Amino acid sequence: MKRRSFLSGAGAGLVGVATFPVVVRSAFAQGDALPSWNDGPTKRSILEFIARTTTAGSPDWVSAAERIACFDNDGTLWTEQPMYFQVLFALDRIKAMAPQHPEWRTQEPFRSVLADDHAALAALGEKGLLQVIAASHAGLTTEAFHAIVLDWLATARHPRFKRPYTDLVFQPMLEVLALLRANGFKTYIVSGGGIEFMRPWTERVYGIPPEQVVGSSGVTRFEMKPDGVPVLVKEARIEFVDDGPGKPVGINHFIGRRPIFAFGNSDGDQQMLEWTAAGTGARFMGLVHHTDAAREYAYDRQSPVGRLDKAWDEAVRRKWTVVDMKSDWKVIYPFEPR
Amino acid sequence: MKRRSFLSGAGAGLVGVATFPVVVRSAFAQGDALPSWNDGPTKRSILEFIARTTTAGSPDWVSAAERIACFDNDGTLWTEQPMYFQVLFALDRIKAMAPQHPEWRTQEPFRSVLADDHAALAALGEKGLLQVIAASHAGLTTEAFHAIVLDWLATARHPRFKRPYTDLVFQPMLEVLALLRANGFKTYIVSGGGIEFMRPWTERVYGIPPEQVVGSSGVTRFEMKPDGVPVLVKEARIEFVDDGPGKPVGINHFIGRRPIFAFGNSDGDQQMLEWTAAGTGARFMGLVHHTDAAREYAYDRQSPVGRLDKAWDEAVRRKWTVVDMKSDWKVIYPFEPR
Repeated sequence: MKRRSFLSGAGAGLVGVATFPVVVRSAFAQGDALPSWNDGPTKRSILEFIARTTTAGSPDWVSAAERIACFDNDGTLWTEQPMYFQVLFALDRIKAMAPQHPEWRTQEPFRSVLADDHAALAALGEKGLLQVIAASHAGLTTEAFHAIVLDWLATARHPRFKRPYTDLVFQPMLEVLALLRANGFKTYIVSGGGIEFMRPWTERVYGIPPEQVVGSSGVTRFEMKPDGVPVLVKEARIEFVDDGPGKPVGINHFIGRRPIFAFGNSDGDQQMLEWTAAGTGARFMGLVHHTDAAREYAYDRQSPVGRLDKAWDEAVRRKWTVVDMKSDWKVIYPFEPR
Repeated sequence: MKRRSFLSGAGAGLVGVATFPVVVRSAFAQGDALPSWNDGPTKRSILEFIARTTTAGSPDWVSAAERIACFDNDGTLWTEQPMYFQVLFALDRIKAMAPQHPEWRTQEPFRSVLADDHAALAALGEKGLLQVIAASHAGLTTEAFHAIVLDWLATARHPRFKRPYTDLVFQPMLEVLALLRANGFKTYIVSGGGIEFMRPWTERVYGIPPEQVVGSSGVTRFEMKPDGVPVLVKEARIEFVDDGPGKPVGINHFIGRRPIFAFGNSDGDQQMLEWTAAGTGARFMGLVHHTDAAREYAYDRQSPVGRLDKAWDEAVRRKWTVVDMKSDWKVIYPFEPR
């Protein structure tokens, strides 16, 4: 098996990652590991970080075991407008379940969902939305839920792009994920979204296996059915909210190592970036700034979804990498003509 | 890089695990992948399971991604007598902290700990012990706790064997771990013990990295210190008990895949084994039965620590593999003369 790195100067670093296979992607073979990124300081900051942490003899060299990279999902790896996709999934679920729940016609928050009362839903806030999500997922076995998620993704379409939601992933970030893995990094998702909502498809879409997905969760309970078959049943209670200060907690809980590379896009990622920055040695902290209303969306300080305000100020002050989507990304989605 | 398997018949299976390196261990080079196991049905059940799940063309072949193996820790990978080692650690911690806590002289459960009142401590039960543990760990940052664990392991000695606790790992199980990894399995610990207690040393001792350790946990909180350095602080509250029905819940939560191989030693492992058994395709369920009072300990149905009763009955009924430590293991500990 041939091992090559196409990141200039990083080849020698592979000595240190001999236990990892190097995925050779055709894009890298052209000599540009991030072909969907325009040249400039943003792209350079990513390439230089990977080169200096993986090149043998570099003062910033990091052992393969410590090459942990964490990515937020909503707004960082895929689109999160007009609303987090999992919320759209939960609303669809509640509508599908409504015939079995006549009481929902008068009971909040279900009344607002069934009436498409978006103002009332927005007023629920993030915690309220998580409750809608938890309620709409409860009572199912983990396996039944997994199947429902995949079925929804196969049939639901994004209101603006008229495509499956999993088409709306960011091609430039897919390239960053692949480049990191090609250089011995373990790539993780660390998302405020539900862990059971993401795991059925992250391996296919991002190359990230279920055991490398950290997220919010509801309580599940083990139950032995009368036929002797054990199941795990999802309950309506929220167990853990992997957002804001929950992100470093989730990283510590699931991974037990501090990442050296972290990418987010909103204030919910601020503490993950601070936690990453506070380690010793080389560090990469990045934020995606949504600046492209024509090709995707443009929003920041005032957005109820994916607000980027305090984290942006801190990024500027501490010289973290801030992606300007409009100028840094040649393409947004994989389906765009190249 | 040369890839070889020394498990008869499994060589061809490596086609399916081309993304994993094969660790060549000198022991395997002798042609016996489990040299500390006596020949017999127990050893054969392990070797045959690995061969048929990793040999290309075998009807039981399993893709590398699904080769998940879960091991209990206390009593399965290392000794758990005369008491779970983490409890001994917590008792030592409470004694070390006692001068700063004069109130503990009268306050339970601390009074019993300081008075070495073992009867009162035993009466606390598993949940009570977890509370002692949580209390003795609280208020520390995760990094300070990590250092305290390593310091204790470096200095504390087992009352009978007069050795560091990490010497008291089972050589035959180390061989099973290595053989599984050499055949593309990802090996996990799934323990009732504390996740933060295990992670500092499992990589060195078992070759299992922190992100593959599932265990019980206390709540941690993110805190930004006045100097701008963020820390994670351990609280006294128990978050999750990874024991009994908690084990399949923990497996689902941390890994998101059902194991195909699981090894335990007590009733606390029963649901993990049931959950493993309930998947489709080839499955391995194993229990270590402690039958060797001369070399280690002998205990089962009546033991307050590591009781093996209901899980044993189920193992016999369902023909799971039960290790008879005395007759199946040539050596128990790595330090024994070979």
